[in-house]
Order: sequence, then C-alpha cells, then structure tokens
Amino acid sequence: MSKLKIIPLGGLDQIGMNITAFEYEEDIIVVDCGLAFPSDDMLGIDLVIPDVSYLEDNYEKVRGFFITHGHEDHIGALPYILRRINVPIYGTKLTMALIDGKLEELGLENKARRKIVKYGQTVSAGHFKVEFIRTNHSIADAAAFAIHTPVGTVVHTGDFKVDYTPVFGDPINLARFAELGQKGVLALLCDSTNALREGFTMSERTVGRTIQSIFDENAGSRIIVATFASNVDRVQQIINAALKCGRKVAVDGRSMVRVLGTAAEVGYIDLPEGTMISLEEIGNYPKEKVVLITTGSQGESMASLPRMAASIHRKVTIDPTDVIILSSTPIPGNEKAVSKVINDLTAQGAKVIFQDVHVSGHACQEEIKLIYSLVKPRFAVPLHGEFRHRTAQAGLAADLGIPRENIFLLEAGDVLELDEESACVTDKVQNGRILVDGLGVGDVGNIVLRDRQLLAQHGILVLVTVFEHKSGKLIAGPDIVTRGFVYVRESEELMEEAREVAYTAIASCQSRGITDWTRIKTEMKDELSDFLWKRMRRSPMIIPIIMEI
Amino acid sequence: MSKLKIIPLGGLDQIGMNITAFEYEEDIIVVDCGLAFPSDDMLGIDLVIPDVSYLEDNYEKVRGFFITHGHEDHIGALPYILRRINVPIYGTKLTMALIDGKLEELGLENKARRKIVKYGQTVSAGHFKVEFIRTNHSIADAAAFAIHTPVGTVVHTGDFKVDYTPVFGDPINLARFAELGQKGVLALLCDSTNALREGFTMSERTVGRTIQSIFDENAGSRIIVATFASNVDRVQQIINAALKCGRKVAVDGRSMVRVLGTAAEVGYIDLPEGTMISLEEIGNYPKEKVVLITTGSQGESMASLPRMAASIHRKVTIDPTDVIILSSTPIPGNEKAVSKVINDLTAQGAKVIFQDVHVSGHACQEEIKLIYSLVKPRFAVPLHGEFRHRTAQAGLAADLGIPRENIFLLEAGDVLELDEESACVTDKVQNGRILVDGLGVGDVGNIVLRDRQLLAQHGILVLVTVFEHKSGKLIAGPDIVTRGFVYVRESEELMEEAREVAYTAIASCQSRGITDWTRIKTEMKDELSDFLWKRMRRSPMIIPIIMEI
Repeated sequence: MSKLKIIPLGGLDQIGMNITAFEYEEDIIVVDCGLAFPSDDMLGIDLVIPDVSYLEDNYEKVRGFFITHGHEDHIGALPYILRRINVPIYGTKLTMALIDGKLEELGLENKARRKIVKYGQTVSAGHFKVEFIRTNHSIADAAAFAIHTPVGTVVHTGDFKVDYTPVFGDPINLARFAELGQKGVLALLCDSTNALREGFTMSERTVGRTIQSIFDENAGSRIIVATFASNVDRVQQIINAALKCGRKVAVDGRSMVRVLGTAAEVGYIDLPEGTMISLEEIGNYPKEKVVLITTGSQGESMASLPRMAASIHRKVTIDPTDVIILSSTPIPGNEKAVSKVINDLTAQGAKVIFQDVHVSGHACQEEIKLIYSLVKPRFAVPLHGEFRHRTAQAGLAADLGIPRENIFLLEAGDVLELDEESACVTDKVQNGRILVDGLGVGDVGNIVLRDRQLLAQHGILVLVTVFEHKSGKLIAGPDIVTRGFVYVRESEELMEEAREVAYTAIASCQSRGITDWTRIKTEMKDELSDFLWKRMRRSPMIIPIIMEI
Repeated sequence: MSKLKIIPLGGLDQIGMNITAFEYEEDIIVVDCGLAFPSDDMLGIDLVIPDVSYLEDNYEKVRGFFITHGHEDHIGALPYILRRINVPIYGTKLTMALIDGKLEELGLENKARRKIVKYGQTVSAGHFKVEFIRTNHSIADAAAFAIHTPVGTVVHTGDFKVDYTPVFGDPINLARFAELGQKGVLALLCDSTNALREGFTMSERTVGRTIQSIFDENAGSRIIVATFASNVDRVQQIINAALKCGRKVAVDGRSMVRVLGTAAEVGYIDLPEGTMISLEEIGNYPKEKVVLITTGSQGESMASLPRMAASIHRKVTIDPTDVIILSSTPIPGNEKAVSKVINDLTAQGAKVIFQDVHVSGHACQEEIKLIYSLVKPRFAVPLHGEFRHRTAQAGLAADLGIPRENIFLLEAGDVLELDEESACVTDKVQNGRILVDGLGVGDVGNIVLRDRQLLAQHGILVLVTVFEHKSGKLIAGPDIVTRGFVYVRESEELMEEAREVAYTAIASCQSRGITDWTRIKTEMKDELSDFLWKRMRRSPMIIPIIMEI
C-alpha cells in the first residue's frame, strides 16, 4: 500500500504562512493558505507568502484548498496562490465570506471555485475525505479537519480553544474528537501557540462580563473600544454592553467596517435596529450615550485608535473624559507600538484600560492534553508555533504516553511519510518565503534586503566622475552626493576632504598606468571607505560611478 | 525667599536618559546622567544622550553630578557630558567603580573629579546638602537622595525596590525614610517602572533558590546561565549554586567580564579560589561540572548567548544535553529577539528554562505606597516610567491622600518651582535627545534619519547625466544605478524603460527651452517617480545628478 505524505510548506517556526499539503498517490489536498507579516529585518516589505513551487510542479494532483478559519495567516496568501493554482476552495460560511471579500478586492471572484461546507459534512477529494468538525477560536466558524485517507485518519485541529460557553454557536464538538479517537487516529496535527501556558484558556464570555462592568463603572464617559476586527464575538459583546447601557455604537477602521459588514451579511452578528450610527453622527449624541469600536489595538500606526492617540484622526478627537479600552494583548513584536498608543492617550488625560480585557483564542496546556486524550493519535505533529511552543507541545504529548519517536517536530518542506504502522521524514521539498513589495511578488530577495539594511544603517555616498574615453583623462568630478549620512551643510569640510581622498585615489591609479574603470572604482571606494571609518566610525554604502564621454 | 527649581532634562516618557537638575539661586546640582538606547526608528544610531544646553548655559552654577546607581540609563551619558561640563561626580563605591571603567575606556579618567560617598553621608554643594540613603535595586550600592534645600527636603528614590533579604548588604533604610517623613518632606520623586503591577516585588534571594533547584534537577548536564552583567547579586547566586554542586564557573561576554572584574576589585562579589576557570578550560572538565555565565539575555545579536544560539560563537558549541537558563525578562522591544534565541537553542536540542527565573529590581504598587506612607511628601513627582506608569503612580499617590493638584506629571524641560507652600510649572527650558552615531555626536538629526527610513523602505535609484555646459547638450546618460530596489539582472527591461522615461523628460525640457539644471532634475525625478509608482507601487529615493563639462 502507498504511503501518506504530510508536507508543511509554510512557516512552522514563525507564526504565519500556515499551509500544509497532504499527498496520497496522485492526489494532493492543501490545508490553509496563509500569509505572514514581514519581520523587522524585511525592510519595505508589505507581506510574505509561501513558496508553493511544490504544488505548481504537481498542479494536476492538487484537488483543493481546505481552509480552517478566516484569519490572514490562514487565508491571506490565497489571492496570490490562486492565480497560479486555481483549484476549488472549501470552507465554512464566515470563512468563505471573508475569502470572497479578499478575492473581490482583487477582481478574482469569478475565477475561483468556492464551496461552503457545514460542520459534520465531508468533502471527497480524490483519495481523501475531509470532514469538517466544529471548534472554537477567536473568530467564528473555525473548523478542525478529520482527513480520512487509505492509511488512516489524520486530525488537523486548525487554531482552536475549548469554549464551553461560546458567544455565538456551539462549543467545540468534543464528542466527535472522542469518536474518532475510539475508531483510531493515525496522526494529530495540533495548534501549539499556547503550549507554554498552564491551565485552560478562559471563555470568550468572561470578557463580555468584564466589558459590561467597565461600562457600568464609567456610565458618564464616552467609551472607545479597540479590538481585533476579526473577533466578531468580541464586537458582539461590546454591542450588547452598549445596548444594556442605552448607548449608540459607531464603528471605525477599514477592516472593522469590512468584517462587520461580512458578518452581518451571513447573520453572524446581531445589530438591533437603531443601534448603529455613523462616525459623523456621534456628535449628535451626549458623550455618555456613545460607544466607538475601532481597529488599532496592536498599535498599527495607520489604524484608527493610534491615529486618535497621535491626534491625526480626521473625525475623532480624544477628550480627557474619554474611557478607552484595549480589548487585546500585544502580538509579540508589537509591545512598544501598543505602549506608545497607551502613553499618547494617557497624556491626553484619557483613562486607558488595557489589562485583563482579553482572552486568547488558542488552547492552553490542559486543552491540548484534552484533545490528545480524546484523539489518542499514534503519531503527533505539533503545528502552529515557534520552535519552543512546538517543543512544549511535544513534551505534553510525551507526558501523555506518546513515544518520543512518534512525535515529529517538522521543518518547512519536510516530507513526513506515514502508513498504519510507521512514520518517517523521507525527503525535503522546495519551500520558503516570497516577499511582496508593492505590486512586485518575489522581485525583492536577500541581496536587495541586505542593501536596504546597509542603506538604513549609515546612508549612501555617491561618487560621480566623468572620464574621457579616448585619453582616460578625468574631465569632471569627483562629485559627491550623500543621503542619510550626515547633515551636509554642517559637514562641508568633511565632504571636501572626502573628494580629495577620491581624487588622490584616481591620481594614484593614473600614475600607475591603471586604466581599467572597475579597478579605479574599487580603489576610490576602498580609500573613501577607510577614510570615513577612521574619521567617523561609519560605513555608508559607497557607489562610485564613472561616466565615459 | 527664593524658590527651588526641579528640571527633568532627559527622557521622562521613555526609559533612559535619566537626568534631573535641581536649582536654587546660584547653585545647580544634577541627579544622574544616563543614556538611552535607540528606538527602532533611529536607524544606524548607537546611543542617545540628553541635550544639556541648559546646564552649559549655566555652567558656573553647576556644583556636581550625584549618581544614584551604576546602570547605563543613569551613568551612560557622563563620558559625553563631562567633556563639556567638568564638575565633580558623587556616587557610592560600586557606582563610582563602574563610572571609572567608562571614563578609562575613553581616556577621561584623569580629567574627572570623583568622590565616593557612603550611605548616611551628606555632601554639601552650594545651598544643597545631598544625603545618600541605602536602597535595594538590581545592582548593588543603589542610593536614594534626601536633598536638603533652604525651602525643604526633597527625596529622590532613584531606581529602587524593597528587599528585606538582599543577597549583598543590608535592606533599604526604611527608618531614615520614616525619620525624614516625620520631619517633613517637601517633595518625593519616585520610581514608576512597576507602578502598574500589584503587590510587592519578590526578594532577589528567591531567584537564588530557584536557580539552586534547577541546578539540583539537572545535575548531569552542562548549565549555561544568561543574565544582566550588572546584576552582581544574581551572578553571585549562580556562583553559589555552582559551588554547592561542585561545578567550576566560566564567564563569557565583554560586559560580564568587565563588571565582575570591577565588582571583585571593590569586594562586592565573593569568588572563592579555584572556582573560576577560563572559557578555554571548560573542555578540561566533565560537562556536568561546568557552569557558564554569559551575556545576551536580551537577545542582543552580538552578545555571548545569542552567538551560541546562532552557532557562530568561536569557543562554545551548544550540545543537545545542555541546560540553558535565561535569568531575565525581555525589556519591552526585545521580545522577538529573545524568542529567537530560545527557539534557536531549542532547535539544537537544548533544554531552555526562561520562565520565573527572574525578579524585577523596581518597586511594585505596595512598595511605592510604603515609601509614600513613610515620606509623607507635600508634593509628588512620579519619575522613571512611561506616561502610563507615571500616571499609575499618580493614582496611587492620590489614593494615599495627596491632593491631585500637588501631583506633577512633568515633561522633559519643565521647570517645577517650589517653596514651602506651593509648587507650579513656570517655564520650559531647552531639552531633547542627541544622537550618537559612531564618533559623531549630534551630526545625525531628523532629516538624516528620515532619509535613512526612506532608503530602508524601497532603496535608491541614482540617475546620472552629463551635459555640455556651453550648449546644454546631453553628452552621456541618463545612466541608472540602483541599490535596495530590485534585482537588476531580472529587471533589465524595467531599467531600460526607466532610462527612456528620464530621456523623454530631458527631451521635453529641451524642446521647451528649459536649461535650468535644477528644473531638469526635478522633471526627471517626478516623471520617474510617477512611472515607478504606477508600475510597481514603490517609491524609491531618486537622486538625479547632472555633471557639467
């Protein structure tokens, strides 16, 4: 019998670019197709998508994309990848509505084949049967998959938590996980995000109670709440609290308006008539009768709340009596940006509440153990987390009795081959990240990035000369133009010396009979580089240019 | 009677650049003289020092620098500022030893007048009498100051915590704070770092117990501990644990070696003979008999542990059996760098322990309340924290009965004038940050930084032309050179089109009789900029250069 291959193609080590291929004979299905946001060293990059050369090379095998939920790190690369791999997309209702929104923005909605799947339904795709199982997460309509294959069933949790009292819809279908476990599960691919955290993630509903009590305690103030646009349940709870206090609700921020529109269309949020007002109307109501729901809880400089904090929001001015709630925690890397927003708001006299008004959407240790205990997999493949998080999940799996040799900490591109009895990493396929900069996909790579980093450090110094082709005589220059190096006006003397250094280098070349332009450029550059390092301990990028006439 | 002026000159809103002037008639004293580390937007900057123009303008009044403790954000700007304001420096023994080290590095040790002060001693400086009071902090020999002035006593806590069981030396002198409170204190300037944290900061000694138990549990492994070089007590506890287990101790990292040398010289650390070995000797001992103490607990890429993690350390290679302890928490902004180190070490199979092996050196809410309750100041000036932290301390002060109008959240440069009865912000003096880049102090400002940011985003495109001076005829070019923009080899067509755009712009100018070089440059730049935006949605910096012959 053939073997099943599991191939994570995207970023296992970093959060983002979730994309995993499952291959059996001539069939491939792909779970999720996410993007990653650029790290600090990816200067000027807008977003990062996975290298799916492996799927392109096996295009005729690919049967479809199966999407667990509608977060960017699971759906965001679809518009890019679909242009090259146009196969059907399967997802639950809200997930698909969010995908539709992305495709429409890019004019791709008529090109993609999409199919909405209900919990409990199973989609056949070649040798695979993919069953959608209800889970809970920080976005509605999240699904886990039971992927039934000829060598056994693989469970992929997607991103999940266990919420016994969710705000919308039902709790995670633990019974189905148990049933699958009873019948026998070959492998479990499980969310590792919170594998370092003890205990159990609190229910989303607890945040609603906290928000309600903040509303009650601040009955005389205008309230502004920033949260994740995609957390529709959170927004619902804010609206519920507003309703109880007789407040009108306005919404600001492009993604917030878009996601709420989508959620309302598919009936996933309840906006009683007369509740919502436009941003322009908030002035018509007393401040204590208004709630404003915004984006920017991660300190994103262009988003709604950070613009209010920086006093550059066109329609909303912070008032010293305002109460502002950040219903979120900073995603790693955003801590300083979030602090800045809090400080800016506090400095304007507003009361900012930012501690304990949030719960995670990911399973903590006890939930992970619960899923393992129900599913009882033979093999464990921790997914979705940094290496330390996946290692922590591996530790939990081992504690629960899964032999260490049956636990796989994969790297992107690893091919894990399984049959009923065994599992082994047998190969590595092409994988990696493709950088998107403006309209360019993949035209910025490591050399360009390294140049940007050098330019960012100490700027650039351009050295221009004109030589006569025939005689090799210096006709004009060396002229020096700099950017990002020093204040030129205050450094005229330095510039004059630098020109002198370049001139001396040229003269030295000529006296030695050197006429090769490349050699002359190199000597000018080296001499100037030495001079600047000795003089200033700086290494700007130096570009010598020789124009021949 | 004259009034006392309190003028924070450095960064109140950001951690770092602690420097506060106290002025009474003809006398000024300065408490601390710290640097700040550059924020992410300060590209290429090494460090940041305060603008002390106000002190320079009043040089003849300045009686001395009084330093609370030896951390960089309190002493780091001294070598720069002393060159312009050479007045005596007062500090406790370890503080002064650390300052000496800094001055020696820069060859300034013979220029500065330094005086070591003991706890309980009072230094007279013009109208001021500065009394040194023992506190606890994450570095030994930290002091608070009671600054006795003709209008009353001002207490400046420095950075502090209350540790009833410190590792070295005695607990904070609470009795003296109480005595001062009984006699009457005009104003309290208090550390706000942990004002958002409830409860009481744990004793440094508790970390020693944690470390000991980790050593006991991992008796068969080599242990590597990374911590702050300046936390001599932490290092002492690591050495104590090593001694109990019969392990030899090696130290790595430039600052770790330097600080331990200094601490040993002044007798602040106990290194029993035969304990310490060099890094080269660790190979001579079984791995379970070695402890390695390193820098890099903040993920600094050039420091010891991060180099081991990245497998570029020259002398130490991580072994899968190693146990690595990060005895620290990430300073805000360093979270991702620290995660990377943990992931890299974990990926090499090492066991990394990074949770709960650290305590803060700053007072939490209950300690802040304790100091306020003992000192009973008339006026409160929260110091040392972001705005949200200082606001939180203001809230605590108000809870303790200090009238809101007596609590001052100052900004850098604010002049707070006080007498026995009243306090009021009356003026603002010059203040700010000066950027240090290599050997340049202050030659990089906002324009240069903005250029670096632009260069970092989309790189640079240099457009060179040669014109004949007399005729205005284009002799050579336009040639295009780019860096950090696109892979040129894969974009030859684009470059050809860009050259064509520039050429058309020149031709258009000439057909309209435009001969002004500036105008021609502007038109070339604008046309090219439009072209690239439409084509790529990118805005590289464009530098048009015209060479005249």
